[in-house]
Amino acid sequence: MYDLIIIGGGPAGMAAAVYAARKRLDTLLTANDIGGQMNWTTGIENYMGYQFIEGSDLIEKFEAQVNHFPVDQKIGQKVARITKIDSGFEVVSESGNKFQSKAVLLATGKRPRRLNVPGETELTGHGVSYCAVCDGPIFAGQKVAVIGGGNSALEAALDMVRIAEHVELVSATPLTGDTVLIEKLSNAKNLRTFLGHQTEEILGKDLVEGIVIKDLRTGEHKKLDATGVFIEIGLVPNSDMVRSLIKLNQFGEVPVNCSCETEIPGLFAAGDVTTVPEKQIVIAAGEGAKAALQAHRYLQRLAR
Amino acid sequence: MYDLIIIGGGPAGMAAAVYAARKRLDTLLTANDIGGQMNWTTGIENYMGYQFIEGSDLIEKFEAQVNHFPVDQKIGQKVARITKIDSGFEVVSESGNKFQSKAVLLATGKRPRRLNVPGETELTGHGVSYCAVCDGPIFAGQKVAVIGGGNSALEAALDMVRIAEHVELVSATPLTGDTVLIEKLSNAKNLRTFLGHQTEEILGKDLVEGIVIKDLRTGEHKKLDATGVFIEIGLVPNSDMVRSLIKLNQFGEVPVNCSCETEIPGLFAAGDVTTVPEKQIVIAAGEGAKAALQAHRYLQRLAR
Repeated sequence: MYDLIIIGGGPAGMAAAVYAARKRLDTLLTANDIGGQMNWTTGIENYMGYQFIEGSDLIEKFEAQVNHFPVDQKIGQKVARITKIDSGFEVVSESGNKFQSKAVLLATGKRPRRLNVPGETELTGHGVSYCAVCDGPIFAGQKVAVIGGGNSALEAALDMVRIAEHVELVSATPLTGDTVLIEKLSNAKNLRTFLGHQTEEILGKDLVEGIVIKDLRTGEHKKLDATGVFIEIGLVPNSDMVRSLIKLNQFGEVPVNCSCETEIPGLFAAGDVTTVPEKQIVIAAGEGAKAALQAHRYLQRLAR
Repeated sequence: MYDLIIIGGGPAGMAAAVYAARKRLDTLLTANDIGGQMNWTTGIENYMGYQFIEGSDLIEKFEAQVNHFPVDQKIGQKVARITKIDSGFEVVSESGNKFQSKAVLLATGKRPRRLNVPGETELTGHGVSYCAVCDGPIFAGQKVAVIGGGNSALEAALDMVRIAEHVELVSATPLTGDTVLIEKLSNAKNLRTFLGHQTEEILGKDLVEGIVIKDLRTGEHKKLDATGVFIEIGLVPNSDMVRSLIKLNQFGEVPVNCSCETEIPGLFAAGDVTTVPEKQIVIAAGEGAKAALQAHRYLQRLAR
């Protein structure tokens, strides 16, 4: 029986682990991986304390901080469900392992949203990627397409104009990302932008050969050549494991108040899986710290 | 006319400045000082990204990040009041300077209630701390004193009996904090409590060596050995400048929702000056980033 089980190994989960351990809570950290979405980013320019740091380096620093404390860790384990038991909660992994605790902190983050168009599933890993940071270099000197108009799409496009021969940026909406990124992209000579264009199909048999896009204004279809397609259209919360326990919002996010409390006493949530706005490392880390301190207060009251 | 005036140079204000600048907002940062409460902390062991860093070093890193962007700065200037004007807000300094903006972000933090005894000012950061959560672990295995009788003092004492060799808890009044905390403390073997005792002096030349306390009943003075002194007699929000603009809560804090919005459109608040719980650098930085991004969204809507 742990005091606290933290689910998720991104910035929220790791910050929570450090804060829980500093409060001497008997803590289990369980996660698919260490780093979460930080694994998909190259350079980080907006984490306070570092003017610039590689994603992998910041993960290492967070991880070292966690490892400094006696926090039990089960990494590489997917959580299937969380259930309420008399003494607190039971966390069950997909492989059937069970762990119990007085409180749970959900920090499972988000995963990339899929386009759901023909060719996407078949060609994932054969030219279709959800992580330009991870897979970008494979397409050096080739023609690629980036789908999306937010920060992650713009960052992917910025990465790829340096790596690829040519980049097609396709977005159904206007560009919504940071002005600084839009400005940087405007200088790229090997970029073509299609706004108000929807991606309809990914072409190719064994490997990606191109995409079909549709002009939402005229209805006209175009075929663009590409050997790589980076889908960067947003994120879906990893909240399935509490779907039977609490009511999620319309986006599948876990509703929390400003103290990271869910509707169930003892169940806390932090970071991108929650309704807290803005998806940023420093925000997730702050929310994780806050949630762990609130969980500590909850456990103190419980011990009465 | 600025897009955004950020008031406060602590972690919330500096994070907000970086995020506002990355959104290309025309921004003024005005503050009494750079660093805020980070200036009063010895070593920082709980800012994610650094296993250990001196407060002054982390301030420098945050400051360098702000200075990387074209953010106007007025440091060393106290804000007297903020008033609503047709086009947004007017911020008036104590010396009479006036600045206008479409949105304002209040990140003025809190200040510790001070004991006002000899040695307190000189030894702050050299054994005198106003934050056991932040600085407690530095005094592992040492003798410390905690001054105060409310929840923050009791929590500090509870933290420290687990960390320090011995804890002296000194309060001029009876203990006013939660019973659960008082009960827990009663089990501590390494705690001595002096109620009805006033702290008269903090001893030490370069580092804290002890305190002098006075029995308010008998008038008798005692000297207690300690290398750390935690003054936990409360914090005061720096919210006077909006007192005529919005309704503060009973503690003088600025009420905000989870998006850092106050009751007045265009007036945002972040960090320790707000009702958001827990007072930590990483939490304040996260809230500052969040508030700046929300201010950016507000300005985008305004421009429509």
